[in-house]
Amino acid sequence: MLGRKLLERLSRDGMLGGKGISHAVLADLVAPPARDIRHFEVELAVVDLAEPGVARELLSGRPDVIFHLAAVVSGEAESDFEKGYRANLDGTRLLLDAIRDGGMGYKPRLVFTSSIAVFGPPYPEAIGDNHATTPLTSYGTQKAIAEMLLSDYTRRGFMDGVAIRLPTICVRPGEPNLAASSFFSSIIREPLNGREAVLPVPDDIRHWFASPRAAVAFLVRAAEVDGEALGDHRSITMPGVSATVAEQIEALRRAGGDDAVRLIRREPDERILQIVRTWPGRFAARRAEELGFRAESSFDEIVRVYIEDELGNRIESART
Amino acid sequence: MLGRKLLERLSRDGMLGGKGISHAVLADLVAPPARDIRHFEVELAVVDLAEPGVARELLSGRPDVIFHLAAVVSGEAESDFEKGYRANLDGTRLLLDAIRDGGMGYKPRLVFTSSIAVFGPPYPEAIGDNHATTPLTSYGTQKAIAEMLLSDYTRRGFMDGVAIRLPTICVRPGEPNLAASSFFSSIIREPLNGREAVLPVPDDIRHWFASPRAAVAFLVRAAEVDGEALGDHRSITMPGVSATVAEQIEALRRAGGDDAVRLIRREPDERILQIVRTWPGRFAARRAEELGFRAESSFDEIVRVYIEDELGNRIESART
Repeated sequence: MLGRKLLERLSRDGMLGGKGISHAVLADLVAPPARDIRHFEVELAVVDLAEPGVARELLSGRPDVIFHLAAVVSGEAESDFEKGYRANLDGTRLLLDAIRDGGMGYKPRLVFTSSIAVFGPPYPEAIGDNHATTPLTSYGTQKAIAEMLLSDYTRRGFMDGVAIRLPTICVRPGEPNLAASSFFSSIIREPLNGREAVLPVPDDIRHWFASPRAAVAFLVRAAEVDGEALGDHRSITMPGVSATVAEQIEALRRAGGDDAVRLIRREPDERILQIVRTWPGRFAARRAEELGFRAESSFDEIVRVYIEDELGNRIESART
Repeated sequence: MLGRKLLERLSRDGMLGGKGISHAVLADLVAPPARDIRHFEVELAVVDLAEPGVARELLSGRPDVIFHLAAVVSGEAESDFEKGYRANLDGTRLLLDAIRDGGMGYKPRLVFTSSIAVFGPPYPEAIGDNHATTPLTSYGTQKAIAEMLLSDYTRRGFMDGVAIRLPTICVRPGEPNLAASSFFSSIIREPLNGREAVLPVPDDIRHWFASPRAAVAFLVRAAEVDGEALGDHRSITMPGVSATVAEQIEALRRAGGDDAVRLIRREPDERILQIVRTWPGRFAARRAEELGFRAESSFDEIVRVYIEDELGNRIESART
């Protein structure tokens, strides 16, 4: 989803970091649907990054900027231990080593999507930029390790890496899925499309959000930010909006009315609550803000972005 | 050095965690000198842990407690990138995977020696238990990654791991070496043996120390501490003594007199200073203290331990 939206944004801009884009290689495990890309040529590579030799082949054109978004997601990395470590740790390390093997003078910007899943409780009121990474999932562990490798490879001069810790992306387009975080998007998206949504946790659960549009802007900013200014600390917690479920629901009410809110069905799920209550609720992402990363400033704005970008500015529930 | 001292301590105690020791396997890249070990049988294995299959073979006796001290040291991990990652990351991961492959019901205590090298500046006045790990060396990076793996493998139920972040061990017995930290021990050890020592940094440099005896006690405590009480946070910063070089020198004066202090020759070395000034000076190691880890309470005590354990309570410079 993020890769697709990033490509659309790059296609609109035609440039990155003040330079025109000449060529892009899009690598994934499955072939993405064909897109209409303006301004530059896109080459598709259906490959497994965790296979030896693949990363080196992908880098044969010596790209100036590499976005590494690929990952086995949280739930799957937890249910399939080996698959998660293979993709998220070994795959990332093979990519880093392929960049290092690029030799003298090749020092591309690598933008890596880390996650706030690198953090674990107990949390302070607002998690600062120097808070320890103590992940409580294998996914978060793999992201935290990849961050460390990226920093060391950058410090050693093999590349110019930036790891951005993404908030939970909300409102995700598409269908509800099995991820424990799925409801954070569903309770907004489904009612705005006239459909019922299930809420498995209490209203006072607080979490940290940014829109897909903001996440794409983070990626672009991470590609452009001055590496010298970052120094040796290459992992940056992204800004976001801290909101409780109750605050999410009030934002939905302001956008879609009481009819939309009535489509939320409360169905407490202890298993989901156990997971979600270990998640962070608020960050003080000062460093990212100083470096020019911008998120929404309220959950209302996050809802508005969804309505603009995914619904063509029209709300189903308001029309019925 | 630490492995030898641990073995001597275990030989004296004859037990660990309230249980008698029946057997020990001592694995290293080189054969250690033969020792007189009481109470239990010691098997030597001259092996390379980073070779596939070695860890599994070492664990064939299904030990209850595993001490993983082996590492390519800081300076070498920096000068030989691949050697450091191979030994400190790949070797450790092979060990963890071999434990995991031990199957149902095999869940040994793994004690891993991490280091305060997992931290990097900027530092607060005293570094707390929730401070971020932002290493500035490949060695520190490899230790921090090993900590993360240990925590995740423990959380998943594959083992019962404890990572202890050791202070700089002082006073090290033996000869001065090429490590940037070597002088912290030399300026005490050499004068107490009637020899000259070189001090390459200013007197106001502050660092974090524990004696070899305390470090061995940390290892033993880490083998015994209740895993349940640790929960999911398995990396523990060890207590120590915060001292400036000036405070070290005053402790030397109290133990060995002005004659000893006169054997310190100031020879500023900008290269060493650049490294040492990025090192942490003080920790608030509350969690370790609550868990029963004990260090010395002053640098005088650290000097006394050296005189007792290495000099048979007799000081050379005081005799001349």
